[in-house]
Amino acid sequence: MSVIDELTSELARLPGIGRKTAQRLTYHLLRQPPAQCRKLAEALVALTERVRKCERCHNLTESPLCILCADPRRDAATLCVVEEASDIASIERAGEFRGLYHVLGGRLSPLDGVGPDDLTVTALLARLEPEGVQEVILATNPSLEGEATALYIQRQLSSRAVKVTRIARGLPVGGDLEYADGVTIAQALAARREM
Amino acid sequence: MSVIDELTSELARLPGIGRKTAQRLTYHLLRQPPAQCRKLAEALVALTERVRKCERCHNLTESPLCILCADPRRDAATLCVVEEASDIASIERAGEFRGLYHVLGGRLSPLDGVGPDDLTVTALLARLEPEGVQEVILATNPSLEGEATALYIQRQLSSRAVKVTRIARGLPVGGDLEYADGVTIAQALAARREM
Repeated sequence: MSVIDELTSELARLPGIGRKTAQRLTYHLLRQPPAQCRKLAEALVALTERVRKCERCHNLTESPLCILCADPRRDAATLCVVEEASDIASIERAGEFRGLYHVLGGRLSPLDGVGPDDLTVTALLARLEPEGVQEVILATNPSLEGEATALYIQRQLSSRAVKVTRIARGLPVGGDLEYADGVTIAQALAARREM
Repeated sequence: MSVIDELTSELARLPGIGRKTAQRLTYHLLRQPPAQCRKLAEALVALTERVRKCERCHNLTESPLCILCADPRRDAATLCVVEEASDIASIERAGEFRGLYHVLGGRLSPLDGVGPDDLTVTALLARLEPEGVQEVILATNPSLEGEATALYIQRQLSSRAVKVTRIARGLPVGGDLEYADGVTIAQALAARREM
């Protein structure tokens, strides 16, 4: 197999990148200065070698504690529970949340063989008292599995002296009623608030 | 900048991959076994180190002659002229053509400052006699620049004892008249053949 075919095959293994796109990317890289290819290669190697999980919240990090857990300005009393480390980036981009996170490492999904023991729920429970957590925000995805996961964690927390909340579901800001699905509209109506 | 941000930035420099897709790819790679990242990195480094241009046809290759020029079963009497090395892969995929290629390395484009001297036209002319070329197929793209390039090469070849042909334009196979643009339909009509 030629080097070109090899890179094309490797790129085509990435999600959302088919054979044709992979080939286009390979030929694009061939037209760039070699330094760009090398930088990409170095970033890939660094990723496998340096990234690990935060000891406290399971976010991805290069140090024992992630940048958020290590920041004394973050409010340790509020804990936002997410499915994946990538969800933290999405929430941080919104710039609203000032608390800490807890990454479950997935969602309950019996069909995929993911049960409670595959998630970091025990580690979450162990954080509550020592860190003085007062509110746990369940920010799992608004999907079937995400809802089931939120419900499961809510039950685990019911005996603890901690407030448990769930992120709101409704119409996305800038969205359009015309294009919203029925379930979302129903949720948006049920969760309506007085103005 | 963290390793995750670094890889995301490098991926986002690729064409058709925005910031969000780059982030999704990075987190995908983080979930894969480290070997996959390393293989991708190795393929990238190999690409910059080992790929060069074929001495004869300017196709991309890892040896002095590309796999097609080195194949004695290919018909040297027919030469297919293409803009980019990636076009060879497209034509080879069709599996119809058994001749050799010549890569121009671009198309005439005064706006981008690409003139005849930036293409491998001189090298093409030098190949005709020694290789006994009888037909030159101009397979530049059916775009404005591609047509101009084909016309320019056709003029350069007019004094040579060689047949010059142009790939046909018309409706794509499996296409639909309803969705075809007017220029394509006009070309398809003009190039109609008796059945």
